[in-house]
Amino acid sequence: MPPPDRDIVLEPIGVVVSPLTDPAQAPKQGFLGAPEATIIVDERFAPGLDGIAVGDEVVVLTWLDRASRDVLRTHPRDELTVPERGVFSTRSPARPNPIGLHRVPVLEIDGRQLVVGDLEALDGTPVVDIKPVLHGPREDGA
Amino acid sequence: MPPPDRDIVLEPIGVVVSPLTDPAQAPKQGFLGAPEATIIVDERFAPGLDGIAVGDEVVVLTWLDRASRDVLRTHPRDELTVPERGVFSTRSPARPNPIGLHRVPVLEIDGRQLVVGDLEALDGTPVVDIKPVLHGPREDGA
Repeated sequence: MPPPDRDIVLEPIGVVVSPLTDPAQAPKQGFLGAPEATIIVDERFAPGLDGIAVGDEVVVLTWLDRASRDVLRTHPRDELTVPERGVFSTRSPARPNPIGLHRVPVLEIDGRQLVVGDLEALDGTPVVDIKPVLHGPREDGA
Repeated sequence: MPPPDRDIVLEPIGVVVSPLTDPAQAPKQGFLGAPEATIIVDERFAPGLDGIAVGDEVVVLTWLDRASRDVLRTHPRDELTVPERGVFSTRSPARPNPIGLHRVPVLEIDGRQLVVGDLEALDGTPVVDIKPVLHGPREDGA
């Protein structure tokens, strides 16, 4: 069990362009109706997109840069009537490492810009990875 | 679209203890048969586990610390007969930000240790987040 020997530093591969600009506006889960958004991938990383096609579903990983990292217990879905519990049993953006996971359909591809549906992430949110959804015995999207 | 104003530094919340010690041994996808493993959560983050129960499925995010970050094109599933394509259309661990996504069942919980099934991650891999699998109109695990 060697401890990590250096800081883990993420490098954004792109950025979200979205009509969502106000955290209060962001729906709590994508399926409740998040808007279309465009992911602009940095030119350096554009070769990594080859193989993604319109109609695919992908998992977009974002860095939720406006989320607090000091939260360990929270009300699920921000509903104050639901008792607090540990953040790791919730999808709260506020958590020690606020990585957002978004399973979204690819609607359009134009060079290094991907238009995706249902992306619950604020305008300007850094994108750190894109992965295909797995289709296996456990179709998981994760 | 403000650029991120500082480095994005992940803080491990725990570590994987696994019989997998050799990268060559690691199966390519969890469903092909990865072993049980134990996630030991750091004492500081243990309050975040409250609400996770045996029988839950969770998405574990890891930092694949032995993966190269310089790869933009690769053979999917490391099969040299399959043409290379962009890493973002593959699950290759080698990618600009090697974050592992693992949808796994929780088999046992003992304080801040979670025993999970099917975890395709090498012994000593840092864990950076744990999230519940979503069960909604788009049950996604992502």
